[in-house]
Amino acid sequence: MTIDHAARRARLAAALPAHEVHALLVTSPVNVRYLTGLVSSNAAVLVRADGSALLATDNRYIDKTRALDVPAVEAPDVAGRLAAPGVGIEAAAMTVATFRRLEAGLAESGGDSESQGLVPLGPLVEELRAVKDEAELELIRTACALTDQAFADVLPLIAPGLTERALARLLDNRMTELGADKPAFDTIVAAGENGAIPHHAPTDRELRAGDLVTMDFGARYHGYHADMTRTVCLGAPAAWQRDLYDLVRRAQRAGRHALTPGARAKDVDAAARGLIEAAGHGEHFRHGLGHGVGLEIHEDPFLGPSRTGRLEDRVPITVEPGIYLPERGGVRIEDTLVTREGGPELFTKTTKELLVL
Amino acid sequence: MTIDHAARRARLAAALPAHEVHALLVTSPVNVRYLTGLVSSNAAVLVRADGSALLATDNRYIDKTRALDVPAVEAPDVAGRLAAPGVGIEAAAMTVATFRRLEAGLAESGGDSESQGLVPLGPLVEELRAVKDEAELELIRTACALTDQAFADVLPLIAPGLTERALARLLDNRMTELGADKPAFDTIVAAGENGAIPHHAPTDRELRAGDLVTMDFGARYHGYHADMTRTVCLGAPAAWQRDLYDLVRRAQRAGRHALTPGARAKDVDAAARGLIEAAGHGEHFRHGLGHGVGLEIHEDPFLGPSRTGRLEDRVPITVEPGIYLPERGGVRIEDTLVTREGGPELFTKTTKELLVL
Repeated sequence: MTIDHAARRARLAAALPAHEVHALLVTSPVNVRYLTGLVSSNAAVLVRADGSALLATDNRYIDKTRALDVPAVEAPDVAGRLAAPGVGIEAAAMTVATFRRLEAGLAESGGDSESQGLVPLGPLVEELRAVKDEAELELIRTACALTDQAFADVLPLIAPGLTERALARLLDNRMTELGADKPAFDTIVAAGENGAIPHHAPTDRELRAGDLVTMDFGARYHGYHADMTRTVCLGAPAAWQRDLYDLVRRAQRAGRHALTPGARAKDVDAAARGLIEAAGHGEHFRHGLGHGVGLEIHEDPFLGPSRTGRLEDRVPITVEPGIYLPERGGVRIEDTLVTREGGPELFTKTTKELLVL
Repeated sequence: MTIDHAARRARLAAALPAHEVHALLVTSPVNVRYLTGLVSSNAAVLVRADGSALLATDNRYIDKTRALDVPAVEAPDVAGRLAAPGVGIEAAAMTVATFRRLEAGLAESGGDSESQGLVPLGPLVEELRAVKDEAELELIRTACALTDQAFADVLPLIAPGLTERALARLLDNRMTELGADKPAFDTIVAAGENGAIPHHAPTDRELRAGDLVTMDFGARYHGYHADMTRTVCLGAPAAWQRDLYDLVRRAQRAGRHALTPGARAKDVDAAARGLIEAAGHGEHFRHGLGHGVGLEIHEDPFLGPSRTGRLEDRVPITVEPGIYLPERGGVRIEDTLVTREGGPELFTKTTKELLVL
């Protein structure tokens, strides 16, 4: 499956008149990649309301533009090369310093102070990116399959004495050996009491019998991200560990089942959170239920109690409730799925039975 | 060696009156870390001209602030919690979207339109960060030692048939096994004709006899970065390969020898570039000679033909000339060093003799 970048630019172009600009200066690197296919650390693309476009990048990447379907110019100052009066800019991607430099440049070359400057706009490209085409879904499906396989391959190696850091390394290495670009984000391994910290960074703490061990990791494949969390138990679980696990698992299932095109983001969150709150653990689940995944590991839409908006069809998203008991430990279970009219398609297929190692 | 964050904040505070602000709202994550020790993805610190400070972060990181020497408040909107009229902001770190949101918030809560808004300022903290204290130098020294050791350990495994990707994985794995946080950046391995691309991303191309193979990699250790490049030859080098290598090696030595406190950035660049230009390869060396390293892999100061400014004492920096011959291949040699009054201290100690494998 090939990606039709021109079709993406046409969709963006169609959205511009409503924002009263004749062109958008796209400077977010991931948005430039989405609209042109160019992977670089310094590029910008101007997309005009008539659907035409001009790409700018520096001498390190200009050769790569020859294979693309959009004309390109070489310029070290990529945004400065493309900025023009009345052009929209991505306010969430451009820094104040760049904005002021570009505005000063336009004022100098332009003319009177009455002329129109740059127009800060919202996340237009991010909104387009939320709904994926089938070529993108195939890449995310593959990223998730690599993630599942790495977990299956590493599982037999998880044992008392292994450190959190060593376990994280095993997962990371296996994902890249299997063909991932690299890990999708900094892998989390949290054993025992560290499991109470949702964003714990792996340490030299050794795994011990009686630990719940949470692993939050994923592969990146051709730029697209996977995200999965599993919590396993070393040795027979105590009653409180099993109860906690069962509760999170039921909440995660409820969240997954609420994932339908048209559902409100806050309602999906509530489907899972309600079960956790009813069990008296509301205060131990303080993050959102999930987030979109694609060219970024966290992208629109987000699932949370105060999130607005509704889900659309073909939106890859995570469902990841967790319960964190200070000093004791925690459980989180996370899948990456995609919304579908007939019900969500599950991308991360590793079992959600409590694995007792 | 412990890091004195209060002393860093005092140096920043002393710089504020010259910029006509009574406080700076620091939102760059790496600058927040530098000034407070907090490692997070969502924090801000307000540093006042009297040297006092207030940190804000969200519920994921608030527990970590208890061990710090600065008071902290919990707030999901960290910048919004600390913004106030007349406060300076980091223009190169804050997006236009955040700036407009904060300004709107101040206007709403504030009063008349005459009142002072936020004041966009330049890279004040980055300028402080360029000169390192001995505790920081020790971390960079360690990061470089891990980099050297990983290269020594992987060297016997470099042989025809190994792919660029597999070699990059070996280096990355070895660095983390030895104690690195993680690789300092995406490791470059470029074999044969791919060596002509300065920022080549590793592919499945296999190494072959007759290849020059360039490896650009480094370890990150406690947040501090190492950066080293070596080019080796698989089998006996052809005359052109040996000549190219010798030229780059002489240019790199000239650049290192020019690294003295007080030297102009452009003169250090010229010391190396002049040799390459004199040999007729000026057009094949199109990037800068080097860059500062510290909490970021690329930070002030930068060495290049159009760079202004002079080096100071205790500035860790890379020297990395390269020559890239399209379709044929390339050579780059890079060290991380630190400027010292008595001459630079070399942190990356791997030999620069041409290694023939």
